[in-house]
Amino acid sequence: MKHVDATLVLNTALAQAERMGVAVCVTVVDAAAWPVAFARMDGAPLGVIDVSNKKARTAALFHMDSAEFAQVAHPNGGAYTLEATNGGLTSFGGGIVLKDAKGTIVGGIGVSGASTEDDISIAQSAARTLAA
Amino acid sequence: MKHVDATLVLNTALAQAERMGVAVCVTVVDAAAWPVAFARMDGAPLGVIDVSNKKARTAALFHMDSAEFAQVAHPNGGAYTLEATNGGLTSFGGGIVLKDAKGTIVGGIGVSGASTEDDISIAQSAARTLAA
Amino acid sequence: MKHVDATLVLNTALAQAERMGVAVCVTVVDAAAWPVAFARMDGAPLGVIDVSNKKARTAALFHMDSAEFAQVAHPNGGAYTLEATNGGLTSFGGGIVLKDAKGTIVGGIGVSGASTEDDISIAQSAARTLAA
Amino acid sequence: MKHVDATLVLNTALAQAERMGVAVCVTVVDAAAWPVAFARMDGAPLGVIDVSNKKARTAALFHMDSAEFAQVAHPNGGAYTLEATNGGLTSFGGGIVLKDAKGTIVGGIGVSGASTEDDISIAQSAARTLAA
Repeated sequence: MKHVDATLVLNTALAQAERMGVAVCVTVVDAAAWPVAFARMDGAPLGVIDVSNKKARTAALFHMDSAEFAQVAHPNGGAYTLEATNGGLTSFGGGIVLKDAKGTIVGGIGVSGASTEDDISIAQSAARTLAA
Repeated sequence: MKHVDATLVLNTALAQAERMGVAVCVTVVDAAAWPVAFARMDGAPLGVIDVSNKKARTAALFHMDSAEFAQVAHPNGGAYTLEATNGGLTSFGGGIVLKDAKGTIVGGIGVSGASTEDDISIAQSAARTLAA
Repeated sequence: MKHVDATLVLNTALAQAERMGVAVCVTVVDAAAWPVAFARMDGAPLGVIDVSNKKARTAALFHMDSAEFAQVAHPNGGAYTLEATNGGLTSFGGGIVLKDAKGTIVGGIGVSGASTEDDISIAQSAARTLAA
Repeated sequence: MKHVDATLVLNTALAQAERMGVAVCVTVVDAAAWPVAFARMDGAPLGVIDVSNKKARTAALFHMDSAEFAQVAHPNGGAYTLEATNGGLTSFGGGIVLKDAKGTIVGGIGVSGASTEDDISIAQSAARTLAA
């Protein structure tokens, strides 16, 4: 993913979080799960830095939103222990696959710090910007 | 957190544990989750050193007592795998957020070695000293 | 395991996956769980590289298919936390013990990237080639 | 723990396993959880090396048999995530606290490779030798 695209995604997420009045961390990774852009908003707890990174990695590494990943990577799911691979992944929402306008997967975004519902909503609105 | 404050918190916890007749480890970390003070009472098993550290980290990193953290960071909670981030966190009680007299979060305390109820009680009494 | 045998197992798995129209990673390890052969098919998500390796390791290290391993290495099984030993193992299917024609265990194969059922089916057909 | 004591414990366990016709790994650690003696019987899968070590560590670090530890260090227990501290511990039987004739804790023994029931039985008989 080009840095200009990652920056667009990042800034869309930050603007959306500010509108919603929440403080989050946002990580954007490329298709190989390497970070391209990151920001921590004032007030976000330090623990969510790692969470936003792992959410983005989960989406990029498995071509799957982390909320969907959570259905299988769980003691009650079909692939328990999958969540412990690749250095630790995320089995709840807020990691979203990033696609370009042609539908090609170009990376992932992870948002953490608000409620999971809000994290998902912020990540989705940012992802839509790139796909538009 | 200043060392003098961390020492006050630590000594309050140790005195309370001695009154209760239990042997615990106590870790005090600053707002960035770095240790400021630590003590292992005679008789506390070596395994609880790491536990007291992880409890304090959990509270400081998520601005949340570890007993509250346990409600979401659990296979049956809304954020399973959160407990495996940041090098491993604690999903049971005994980690408490430390605030100063103005209510500002300045760090965390972790107590481990007694029953979870007693660990929590010791940590809470120590945290109150700082907030007073 | 000799490289020629590992290559036979690997190529059988890849041919089977291609026939089934799925993109997988395949890892073949020897009896000491060290990799001998590996391939990532075009289109397989990067996250399954590690999964195929851990599946093969699980089979070789415990002389047990990973689907069988999953019965005990699970919060509801008789040996919870076994899945976290040896650097992280796999508690679902797709890792198969490799035996030679005499029935001696010579290593393990791990297949990941398709459904677990298909992963198992591919790994089994590859394992049969070696045992024949 | 003195090496002569650890050797006695180890050899008692190995003799008992041989009588029972099972192949196990046995680790003896001192009160600080450092290894003093270890043996892998012919035929024991390589994966159980790490398991026997973690079982012995669990007993020594928490002054508690690993079967008892499993009651709390479990998603359904009172201290979920305790099993992930100290580099990973064991939440099933086969790790036993070692005490001398005066009842002082001097270390732990971990047995792995047979059924959990047999692992426990072997470890207990070895521990009794030291306490006698």
